Formats: sequence, C-alpha cells, structure tokens
Amino acid sequence: MTDPERMRAFLEAHVLPLEPAFLADRHDEVDAGVGRAREVARASGLWCPHLPASLGGMGLSLVALGEVGAVLGRSPLGHLACNCNAPDAGNMELLHRAGTPDQQERWLHPLAQGLVRSCFGMTEPEHPGSNPVWMSTRAERDGDGWRVTGHKWFTTGADGASFCVVMAVTDPDGPPHARATMFVVPTDAPGFTKVRDLPVMGAPSRGPASHAEVRLDDVWVPDADRLGPVGAGFRLAQERLGPGRIHHCMRWIGIAERALDLLVARARQRELAPGAPLGNKQLVQSWIATSYARIRAARLLVLDTAARIEQVGARAARVDVAAIKLHTAQVMLDVVDHALQAHGGAGMLDEGTPLAWWYRHERAARIYDGADEVHVETIARALLGAP
Amino acid sequence: MTDPERMRAFLEAHVLPLEPAFLADRHDEVDAGVGRAREVARASGLWCPHLPASLGGMGLSLVALGEVGAVLGRSPLGHLACNCNAPDAGNMELLHRAGTPDQQERWLHPLAQGLVRSCFGMTEPEHPGSNPVWMSTRAERDGDGWRVTGHKWFTTGADGASFCVVMAVTDPDGPPHARATMFVVPTDAPGFTKVRDLPVMGAPSRGPASHAEVRLDDVWVPDADRLGPVGAGFRLAQERLGPGRIHHCMRWIGIAERALDLLVARARQRELAPGAPLGNKQLVQSWIATSYARIRAARLLVLDTAARIEQVGARAARVDVAAIKLHTAQVMLDVVDHALQAHGGAGMLDEGTPLAWWYRHERAARIYDGADEVHVETIARALLGAP
Amino acid sequence: MTDPERMRAFLEAHVLPLEPAFLADRHDEVDAGVGRAREVARASGLWCPHLPASLGGMGLSLVALGEVGAVLGRSPLGHLACNCNAPDAGNMELLHRAGTPDQQERWLHPLAQGLVRSCFGMTEPEHPGSNPVWMSTRAERDGDGWRVTGHKWFTTGADGASFCVVMAVTDPDGPPHARATMFVVPTDAPGFTKVRDLPVMGAPSRGPASHAEVRLDDVWVPDADRLGPVGAGFRLAQERLGPGRIHHCMRWIGIAERALDLLVARARQRELAPGAPLGNKQLVQSWIATSYARIRAARLLVLDTAARIEQVGARAARVDVAAIKLHTAQVMLDVVDHALQAHGGAGMLDEGTPLAWWYRHERAARIYDGADEVHVETIARALLGAP
Amino acid sequence: MTDPERMRAFLEAHVLPLEPAFLADRHDEVDAGVGRAREVARASGLWCPHLPASLGGMGLSLVALGEVGAVLGRSPLGHLACNCNAPDAGNMELLHRAGTPDQQERWLHPLAQGLVRSCFGMTEPEHPGSNPVWMSTRAERDGDGWRVTGHKWFTTGADGASFCVVMAVTDPDGPPHARATMFVVPTDAPGFTKVRDLPVMGAPSRGPASHAEVRLDDVWVPDADRLGPVGAGFRLAQERLGPGRIHHCMRWIGIAERALDLLVARARQRELAPGAPLGNKQLVQSWIATSYARIRAARLLVLDTAARIEQVGARAARVDVAAIKLHTAQVMLDVVDHALQAHGGAGMLDEGTPLAWWYRHERAARIYDGADEVHVETIARALLGAP
Repeated sequence: MTDPERMRAFLEAHVLPLEPAFLADRHDEVDAGVGRAREVARASGLWCPHLPASLGGMGLSLVALGEVGAVLGRSPLGHLACNCNAPDAGNMELLHRAGTPDQQERWLHPLAQGLVRSCFGMTEPEHPGSNPVWMSTRAERDGDGWRVTGHKWFTTGADGASFCVVMAVTDPDGPPHARATMFVVPTDAPGFTKVRDLPVMGAPSRGPASHAEVRLDDVWVPDADRLGPVGAGFRLAQERLGPGRIHHCMRWIGIAERALDLLVARARQRELAPGAPLGNKQLVQSWIATSYARIRAARLLVLDTAARIEQVGARAARVDVAAIKLHTAQVMLDVVDHALQAHGGAGMLDEGTPLAWWYRHERAARIYDGADEVHVETIARALLGAP
Repeated sequence: MTDPERMRAFLEAHVLPLEPAFLADRHDEVDAGVGRAREVARASGLWCPHLPASLGGMGLSLVALGEVGAVLGRSPLGHLACNCNAPDAGNMELLHRAGTPDQQERWLHPLAQGLVRSCFGMTEPEHPGSNPVWMSTRAERDGDGWRVTGHKWFTTGADGASFCVVMAVTDPDGPPHARATMFVVPTDAPGFTKVRDLPVMGAPSRGPASHAEVRLDDVWVPDADRLGPVGAGFRLAQERLGPGRIHHCMRWIGIAERALDLLVARARQRELAPGAPLGNKQLVQSWIATSYARIRAARLLVLDTAARIEQVGARAARVDVAAIKLHTAQVMLDVVDHALQAHGGAGMLDEGTPLAWWYRHERAARIYDGADEVHVETIARALLGAP
Repeated sequence: MTDPERMRAFLEAHVLPLEPAFLADRHDEVDAGVGRAREVARASGLWCPHLPASLGGMGLSLVALGEVGAVLGRSPLGHLACNCNAPDAGNMELLHRAGTPDQQERWLHPLAQGLVRSCFGMTEPEHPGSNPVWMSTRAERDGDGWRVTGHKWFTTGADGASFCVVMAVTDPDGPPHARATMFVVPTDAPGFTKVRDLPVMGAPSRGPASHAEVRLDDVWVPDADRLGPVGAGFRLAQERLGPGRIHHCMRWIGIAERALDLLVARARQRELAPGAPLGNKQLVQSWIATSYARIRAARLLVLDTAARIEQVGARAARVDVAAIKLHTAQVMLDVVDHALQAHGGAGMLDEGTPLAWWYRHERAARIYDGADEVHVETIARALLGAP
Repeated sequence: MTDPERMRAFLEAHVLPLEPAFLADRHDEVDAGVGRAREVARASGLWCPHLPASLGGMGLSLVALGEVGAVLGRSPLGHLACNCNAPDAGNMELLHRAGTPDQQERWLHPLAQGLVRSCFGMTEPEHPGSNPVWMSTRAERDGDGWRVTGHKWFTTGADGASFCVVMAVTDPDGPPHARATMFVVPTDAPGFTKVRDLPVMGAPSRGPASHAEVRLDDVWVPDADRLGPVGAGFRLAQERLGPGRIHHCMRWIGIAERALDLLVARARQRELAPGAPLGNKQLVQSWIATSYARIRAARLLVLDTAARIEQVGARAARVDVAAIKLHTAQVMLDVVDHALQAHGGAGMLDEGTPLAWWYRHERAARIYDGADEVHVETIARALLGAP
C-alpha cells in the first residue's frame, strides 16, 4: 500500500468513528478517542508526516506530504490524529528550520512527540492581517532579554498550549520587512494572558481548534528564547507560510473530495419520489460534474506548486503559492456548499456529516493566511511587473 | 413618521441593544430584554404587524407589511420582538383564515397576545421537503376524533411551544393534493414527544429559534381540533406559504440591507495602512455596488409580488412567489458573504455583528419552504406550459 | 390597447419580418423595409416616443417611455423603426434641452422628422472612456467661431449622418468638469473626415449601427453652432446620459425578455430524443427560472429609477442610474448567453434568431456609457461618502 | 530548444504577423501568408505534430502534442500553419487508425502532405448533437456500394475540401451504438451538394474556418470507401473524439494564455489618468490573478488526462475527457471575456488583438463536441454508478 492508501485505511478505521462525538461536542469522548488514534498513528508510522524521520516523522517530500495531507483533510480530526495540525505543524517546521539546538530540545521535541501543544501569535485585532508589517506588539531590549507587550487574537489552539511563538516589532523604524522578530513565550510566563477564547461561528471554544485573544503585558523573554535573528520575523513567517499553504490547500482538497463523495452518496440514495433518486436531476449532476473537474484541477495545481517549492524554494514560487491559496479555498467552499444543498435540511445539521462544520469553519479559508484580496494583489503585481 | 420609520426607531432603541447578549447566547438576558421590547412594541402599536387591527395587529396591506418586515429583518430578534416570527406568524394567519371561532378563541388569541408560542409539524426526516405530498404521518378516524402517528423534524420553535399544527395523511389513496389534513395538537398531549432539539449549525438549541425532532405516537386528537376540512391540508399549507414567502423574502431583504450597511461601515473605517481605508479597494467597491443594485432590485420584485398576491391571490401569483423565494435567498446570502469577507477575522465571530449568525443560519433560506431546485421547476414548468 | 401593447403589435407586424434580411446583411432590403415601417410608425402615432407631442413625438413620461422602449428592444431594428435609436434620440433630447431656436430649426426638426441622421463624437482612441474629462480634442477661438482639431472613435452612425455633436476642450486649464464644450459640426465641414468604419465584432460597417473613426483637422465652427454655454460640455453630456441610460437599460430589458421567450420556445420544441423536450432538463429549467426572476427584478429597478429621475432629476438619482447600467447589462448578457446555449449550433448562427447578433454586439453594453468598473466606483464612492 | 519553444518561435515569426490580414478578412493575403508559413513549418520539422514520423509528422506523445497544441492555440491561424487544424487533424487520425492501405494512399497521404483539405459530416440540423445515435442520414446497400442520403450542417471546412467523412445509419433497427457507419465521400461525388456556408457569428464564410450545410442525395459510395467496419461509425467517432478533445482543450489553453498576456499588457500600458495604469485597479488585478490560477490548473488537468489516455485508452478515461471539455471551455471563455473588458472599446474590434474573434467564435466551445450539459451527464452518471 502507498502512504496515502495506508493513511486512508487508518483514517477510516480510527478517525472517522470519532466524528459523531466531535460534531456533538462530547469533549471527553473526543479527547480519549484522539489519544487512542494518535497511539495507532505513531505505532503505524503515520506520525508527523511533515517531519523528517530523524524527528520521528514520515520523512516525506512536500509532494508526498501533500498527498497524505489530502487524505487527512477528509476529517476535521485527521491532522490532529497524526500530530500535524495547525499551528503545531508550522511551529515544528519553524523550530526545525530556525531553532537553536537548545530550543529544539525544549520546544520541538516535546511537540514532535505529541506531549505538548503550541500556538502562534501574529494577527492583531487592531491591524489587518493583510498588512503583516503593520503591527503594534513591541519587544524592547532589557538586559539579556526582552520586554514584550502586545495584543493578539485568532491565536489558534492557545487553549491548552504550552508555548506561543510571538511576532513582535523590535525595530519600529527599520525597513518594513525587517522590523519584527519571533520569540518563544511559554503560556505561563508572567504577563502572558489568554483573555478569552473567541466565539467563532458557533464553535465550542476549547482545545486545538479554539482561537484565543491574548495579551502580553511586559512579558520578560530571555534572549535565548528569541527564534531566529533579530529582524528576521517577517522572513521566517513567510518561509513558514510557503509549505504551510500547501498543507492548508491539500487539506482543503481532502475536504472537497469527501464533500463530493457525500454529495454523490446523497444523490444516489435520497429519493424525491419512490424510485426517483436525487441524482437524476441535472442541477445535482452539474454540481457533481463541475466539482469533480474543479477538484482534480486544483489538486494537480497544488501538487505542481509543491514540486516547484521543492525545486526553486518558496520565495521563487510565491506567485504560485498565492495562486493555490486563492484558488483552492474557493473550490473547496463551493463543493461544500453544493453538498450541503444536496442534503437539504440534513445538511444544516452538526451530525451525520461534517458538512455544516466545514461550511461554518472553513469559511475562514478565504480570510486567514492572507485574504483572497491579498493574494490577488500578489499575483497581479508579479505578472504586471510592478515593484 | 411612516410605519417603517417608526419600526426602525423601535428596532434601534429596543432590539439592536439585545444583539450582543443574543449572539453570546446569554439566554436569560435575551429573554428578559425581548420581554421588555415586546411590551414597548405593543404599547407603541407595533405589535403583530401581520394581523388585522381586530386581532390587535397593525392592520397592514401585504405590501405595507413587507416594508415593515424588512425593517424587522435587520436584526435576528426583530420579528420576535413584534410577535411576528415564524412559525407563529404563519400559524396565526392560518388560524385566522381556517380556524373555527372556538379554535381561534383557544389558539389564535393567546398567540396574538404573545402569551404562548406554537410550532408547525410538516417536514419529515424520511421524505424530501421538496415533495410535500409524500408523507408518512397518518391520522386515522377513531370515534369523534383521530389517532395521529408520525415523525417530524425541523419543527421550529417546538421548545416552549404550547401547540403544534400537524400535517397528517388522512386519505392515503386520495388524489395527491387531497390526502392530508391539518390538526392542532397540544404539545402536552399524550404521545406527543419532542425527541430532541436538532443541532443546527452550531446553534444553541432552545427557544423560538430551535428546531426539534418530534414524534407522535398514537396521539388522540378530537375532531374539534381538526383545522380546516378533511383533505384540505395541502391547500391550506400552500395558502399559508404564499404570504409566508413574502415574510421570509422581506426579512432577507432586511438582512441584506443591514449587511450592506455593515459592509459600507467596515469599508469606511478599516484601514489597511494608515490613511488607506478598505473602501479604496475596487473589489470591495464592487461588492458594495453590486449588492446595492441587487438588493434594490430584489426589494422591488418582492413588493411587486406582494401587490400581485393582493390583487390576484397567492395561487395565481405562484410563479412570482416561487421566483422571489429563489432569487432573494441568493441575493441575501451573497451580500452576507461579501460583508463577512470585508470584516476579515472579525466576520467569523459571533460578536460585533450578526454576520456570522446569518452566514450560518440563513444558509437554510435556500432549503426550507421549497429548496431552490423546487422553485426552479415550478417556474420553468409554468413558463414552458407543462402540466 | 396601452402604448406598449400598440407598440408590440406594430413591432410584430412591421419590424420582426425585417429581421431575416437584417441578420443576412441584405442592406437594400433592410433600408426599404425600415423606411416602410417608419411610415407606419409615424402614421400610427408611434413615432419618436422620446419627444414631446409638440415635436411630433409620443409625449411620454420617462417611465412610460421605458415601457415602450422595452418593447422596441425586442428587435435590433425596433428603435430605428420609431426614430428613437441611439445616438439620434440622445441628440434630439440634447438639442431640445440646450439648443437655440435656430439650432432646433436646423438640426432638431429634421432629425425629429426622420429626414436626417446624426452622430455623437466624444470617445477618443487615446483616452479611456472611463475618464471623460481627459480628452485631446481642442477647440480654440478664432474670430466669431472656433477651430476644432481632434480624433474620435466609436462615433456611432457617422456613416450617413448629416452632423456630429462634438465634445472639445475649450479651457484646458479650467476645473476638470468645466473644460469642454459641445459643438454641432456638419459632416461635410472642411476638415471633418470619417477615417473609416471600425470593424466591430464581425459587423458590416455601414449605416446607423456602424461605428466610425473620425478626424477633425482645424474644422471651422461658427459660434452659432456651439451647443450650450462654453464649458458646459461635460454637464450636458451627463444630462444626456441620465435618461440615455434608461433608454439603454429598457432596451436591454427588451432584449432579455425576447431572449427568454426564445429560450422557452426552444426548450419546448427541441427534442433530445423522441418525446423528450429540452425543457425537461433541470439545467435548462434553471436558466429559465433565474432569467425570469432576474429580468423582472431588473425591469422594476430601471422603471423605479426612471420615476426617481422624474422626481428628483438625473443628478440626484445618479447612484441609481449607475446601478441600473451596471446591473441590467449583466442580466441581459447572461440571459442571451443561456438562450444561445439552449439553441446549440443554431445559436451560433446569424439567422433564425437575433441571439448571435446580440451576443456579439451587446457585449459592448458593459463597456460604453461607462464601463462596469466606472459605475462600481460611482456607486461605492457615494455610499462610502467619499468625495 | 524544446518542441514548444521551437513552435513558439515559429509562431511569433511566421504566424502572428498574419493576424492583421486574417482579422481584416483579406483572404488572398492570408492564403499566401499561410502557404509560406506552412512551407517553413514543414522545413523546420514542425509539420503535422499529431502524426507519427512515418507519415511526415512530429511523432509526439499525446502529452507532448498537447504542449505544442497550446502554443499553436495562441493564434487563430496556428494549427492551420502546421496542418493540424480541425477537422483535418481528426480525419488524419481516423484514416491512420481505421483506413485501409488503399484509403490511406488516396486520402491520408495527400492530407498529411497538405495538398488537400477535408471535412467531417456528422451533425444534422434536425437532431441534437447531444444525442449522437439519433441521426437521419441513411446508407443503403446497392450492389457493391451504398446509396447515401442525408442532411448535415456545421460541416467545418467543407468549402474547398476534397472529401468528407460522412456518418450514416446503416442499420436503423440495430443497437443504438451500432447503427451507423462511416464513409469517405468526395465532395465532387454526384448528389453531394454544399448548400451554403452557414452565417456563423459574423464570420466570412469561406475556407478552412467555414461551416457548411451539406446535402447528400442518393450519393453512390463504393464499399471500398467505407471507413471501418459496418456499424462501427459511433465507436470510431468516439475514438476520434478522445484525443480530439485533448487537441481542442490544449488549443483553448493556448487561447487563454494569450488572452491573459493581452490582459496583462493592456493593464500595464493603458492609463486611466496620467501615471495611473489600469493594472492598479483591484478588479483588473482579480481578473489577472484568477485567470492565472485557473489556466494553470486547467492546463495540468488536460495534460494529466492526456497521460491517462495514453495509459488506459480514451474509453477508460472518458470521464476525465468529459471533465476537461466541460471545464476548459469555460475557463477559456472567462479569460477572453476579462481580457476583452480590459480593452474597453478596442476589445470589441476585429483588429489589434484576436479577442473579439475568439469571443465570437470560441463561444461554440461550449456547444460542439458535446455541449456542456452532455458532459455534465456523462460525468455524473459515471460517478453515480448509473447505467
């Protein structure tokens, strides 16, 4: 069996059965189930597909990782079960790339072993995420460390996280892309406060899928917990986002593929009158056919872009990276919407299928990691040859 | 001040302030606030806009009612505050039209006075809502009454309702549109069970906005509680839906108009960089411009159809009634989606604006009261001259 | 019979029969047929619906004119047959509003009697039509007249026209909206040259529907042929465009209505297999249903805007005027596209129906008189309260 | 240089310079220019890319052919210049696959050498192209030959063709897919009449791009001119269409790629005001960005399908073949439409760019070789597992 096939078998045996409890928000049952699934994943060599084997991961190329990620995307719990959910996966990649041996020992290894969780503090309520160089959080030198003060939100997974990777401005008057620096801040550091979990689209606010508002009030961070060079925050964030967008896009491909499967199954089974299945209707057929074509095309586009990143680097491939983010999010949302419509009232329910969950929560796909409009400008400027 | 202007002032003074508690799901605060708002509405002559003055209502034409309904639609609590929320409003219209004096005394008057709530049991999980004549709930003659057995879901507002208007097949072998009859069934009747409140798109399941699964197991209903003639169920349901769709469509117009206001306000205030408001961006401008045009056109279409219903009756206007349902739902959803996108991360939150609430719950607008595809067929068949 | 009914009867009896010759580009047959139709129109009181009775027109309100215009729009020859085609209709309105008695005698009356045709020289190849105050054509004082030099294109109907209303900059350093002035220039004036008829979307280049490139080389224009005050060109053009957009939009409504009729007829008659009409297919039904709803909504929007112009003037209604231009053009093009698709190969032919003609030539509806993007900005800026 | 690079250089040097004459319909100039370009193509080894080297072609895989085809698609004259235009290319493939040595000698070799042209007679005006087994043309045995009688249209390139491959029913009562047989009929055979060239979207009706209506009145065809087995017509047509759709789709990719280049160039050069290029506008940027993403995705999808055809055959890949036809046609039309809009009035002209030509003539891409709706049904039925 190929890796994607093995992953598919794992997903169907150990993850999909957890969905009813997940959709019904039965926390304890989900936590226990995910714990068991993670043990199976680790024992089966399906753990941390985004990491090299030396760190206990699957040691995949970015393209192979993408194929596996699409399988995991079929369930809202897939990535968590294999310890490659956002933002942990991105933080592991970041620490792997930019962390000192000491930082890797303290932060990366526990993450890679699934012993702790982490979060990423970048977006601020006062500033648009579309302008990443406009940020109020400040870190000022203080002896052999820094004093960090700021206000973050949409800090995913802060609930239960051990530490937060925080972006802070260290040189407010520097060139825009050299102003910020990254720091690793333990969530129990004095002055680090999770203000609240944000009420996102009717979601229960807890655990890995929660999104927090966070305040840092004069938090002292030793210079040893600075991640990467001073002023390198923006560059590291960009490097984190390159493969990160492949992860997201392939997860969305997985969502779209499962949504299409659910659409087809519904069209086959639901009868509008005795003997007259929904699938006989040409509008439903058009949802199926266009979804099929669009998903296949988007999948090839993302995998091709993954290959390009491996060949030329995320920076040189940045136009294509922007293109897949813009394109795939819309394809996924459209397919989910069609599948929901085909389910009628049942499509509105947080039970039976994850369609309503995706409809609600994946709407954010057109917003986070650069809203559609940001990617439009990135692509257009590059093609137009604008500065 | 015109009625819509008075209603707008009432809404802004007494209803919008309740939205934060509503979105945060602080039940008791909402209940208390809505109670106070209802007292104001009644005292101000803004009570039951859908009823004649003789029943304590505003005595409006369908067109004037539509104008008022658009104002109320600006808030998820608007219609409730004036006692014209679904399904109570439709049930009042039904009892007013088809109820005996005794039934009106027992059911209509308490509803019209806001003393009780009601629900409507039509949709069944086993059968598509798009085929209203295919139904399993049965009512069989038993002495001077009926024995009703069946299974319903999406019974809106069942939680807390005093009675349910139930559609049941009384003549399974009759002509399709003459098979069913309506009954008023108290929710405490032996055999009437609210199985559960359905988990709809992350909604808290309680009160007027909840949707229940209901079972009727051999419920005895005296013939005096039969609503309308035997076999008239389908006809009465259709008559209920004609004006009912005007109500829904004008509520959606109100949602769209408020969403556009929120979009414009966001575009004006949010800065992408110091001094560079979001509204300078041409994509955002295109959302504003097309929303403006589409909302105005849809509003005129719905009001024109309301006038047609008054002139020729809901039956003769049924193609236009189908057209407004199909058309307005999509316009509203598109505007809400644009407004949400313009809000970025904040648009995903159940706070600040009702956009996330509408995004989630008004998705059902393309499903209930006839899914899009049903209306497509209704309109096309009429234009094609098909039987 | 109402005016629209009378117009419909005229159209069907005297104009539709000319379409085969028109689509086949049999000039002489068309010219002769249109000549006869014009005689009938004039004799029947269906002449110049846009003019007051004192000028031999129908003396209609703008709303009533719109209703009539939608009927005429059903055929590419409709407006020509009643002497209200662009740009003659707009020029007549302009001369009626801004012309001196002498100018009206010389230019308006022959136009209103259908004895001559005219054209309008505004757009320049070197400058975007979307920026009407950026123009190179210059008029400089010379004795009791002006010397006009410039380059125009898309000068509709120049072929065969007696005169051209020309926009020229008279005060290059004045406030942007006060720089230009209008002049009436006979097409046989020395220095006025029709360079060529533009090759527009495969059209034969002749007669009223042709679009010319024109040069003015030091053309002498007596001050008596100045139309309106010096510097008033832009204001007059705007005033001309207000009702002019109602004319265009209602013509497009007529196109869309006829296209929907053709779509329905095709769906009814074309069989995909013996006994299986195209209209049984749900995608075709969705084209019919959404077209029906969108056309009705757009029609109401345009008529409502016509009423607003009559009440408050074109300037105060300019946001709505922009909205109908933006909205109606797209609705019309979508309906034409659906109808064409339903006709299969036959839809590609310049025979049988005017669908291919409209598909080609009405694509310009999103470009002339302000491209979509211009109207987007007009509407958005007004709603945003921008200067 | 790779083959696509060599082809691109050839195209830019020898084909693009012919476009002005082509768009202006200067026949003789085009004919002479194409003749010279064909000589260059043949001398440069860029001749008949769809044929094996043994037949004088480039001997490419289907994928490599696709890459080359996208380059040729950049100009309306590209395929003609390399002797791989429709329907000649498909006829060559058909004769190569199914022709007898004698047939290949008489028909294939002259075609492959560019000495003659051919046409393909399948579609009938009385029957929908979407139902290929419903056809009226009949061939009846008569001695050692057949008598063929029927009526065809959209017989592309009949003007000037030496022979026509004709589909005719030979067994009206046989199984639907075994009723028809193919025949090669010289266009000068007695009874074969080109009734007329169809007036397609304003096109001049002559030469390779014309579409004829054809009648066969009791045309005698010797059995030696039967192409393939009796009853194999439908199967051969399907086999011809499999790679044929790759050809069309890659040609459309080429059109879309050139249209995007034209869009970008226009956005860069056109100024809305001095110093304010069109490309600064976010709507224009969104056309560029979404076009870029969609074209790349569609290109990968078509090439992936070409590879599948090579691996498993056109029959096994038929769902994907349907998907690329449905998907790519729409992508191409949308990009052309955006590019046209960006050009404003100039976009409507048959000069400067081929955008207006493509807008008109490539609209047929959603109709021929199976209308969109046919492919929707093919894909959906396969996914639904319907018979």
